[in-house]
Amino acid sequence: MATQAKQLDELFHEGLKDIYFAEKKILTALPKLAKAAQSKDLADAFENHRAETEEHVARLEEVFKLIKQEPHGKTCPAIMGLVEEGQEIAKEYKDSPALDAGLLAAAQAVEHYEIARYGTLRTWARELGIKEAVSILSKTLDEESKTDALLTKLAEKTVNREAQTA
Amino acid sequence: MATQAKQLDELFHEGLKDIYFAEKKILTALPKLAKAAQSKDLADAFENHRAETEEHVARLEEVFKLIKQEPHGKTCPAIMGLVEEGQEIAKEYKDSPALDAGLLAAAQAVEHYEIARYGTLRTWARELGIKEAVSILSKTLDEESKTDALLTKLAEKTVNREAQTA
Repeated sequence: MATQAKQLDELFHEGLKDIYFAEKKILTALPKLAKAAQSKDLADAFENHRAETEEHVARLEEVFKLIKQEPHGKTCPAIMGLVEEGQEIAKEYKDSPALDAGLLAAAQAVEHYEIARYGTLRTWARELGIKEAVSILSKTLDEESKTDALLTKLAEKTVNREAQTA
Repeated sequence: MATQAKQLDELFHEGLKDIYFAEKKILTALPKLAKAAQSKDLADAFENHRAETEEHVARLEEVFKLIKQEPHGKTCPAIMGLVEEGQEIAKEYKDSPALDAGLLAAAQAVEHYEIARYGTLRTWARELGIKEAVSILSKTLDEESKTDALLTKLAEKTVNREAQTA
């Protein structure tokens, strides 16, 4: 039993390191996206999400504490690719009316990455019986889902506005 | 107007190339995941999703046709990272009772990547007035969402079973 429990423990710890790395990466990317965004709505959304992301990092540090581990990130090529993509769009579509649509697409891919990760971690925390972690991870998962819904609304508004001003 | 419309067109075309590359990558990854999976349920889910993915590729080719473009993929580092991760887990957790939980986590990250991409492409197709593409992309988006929901169920069942047999 100890071995099997330990192995889900390990997966949980690895998953935490992965999302911790991702959140920190996102934290440095969001101000750049906010600066690049053309519409004030989108810039504000990125700014607000940056503040939330700081909170997410702090929550992950609480979860590391619950499993008696130091908070360390582990390089995750997927999130690096997603963040890189946002920065490429900011460069390639600078001054294009499609810029915000592109930035929104990149940001939603990042949100979905996080939704998948937090969903998995919550399932594992539940199974491992770390109740406090379940509640902490749920809070962040809810916020990521809300951010994704907000970005969807902005995306619809953005392409409509582009069409109207075109 | 022509310029602005063209720019959303470009984003749409770039997005299509990205997900076309991703679907083809997933198509080669799924049989390996099915082979690695310990439970029959999970192996079956990967096998069924492979058949669906073939359909998704064919649908994307229809969308390329609708915008009068040849179907070409464009290397996407994010999906390469996600697929790579599944393969690493298959190797590192071989013979571990946590293997399926790990494979499920990797597969759900891939599903969410696709959900984000298809959602964005559908919004853009709607704005560009390519109605047939909206309906094609909706079909695939629904299937990806259903697959994600199925994987969530399997994930809950998997960790429960591990706990029971532990």
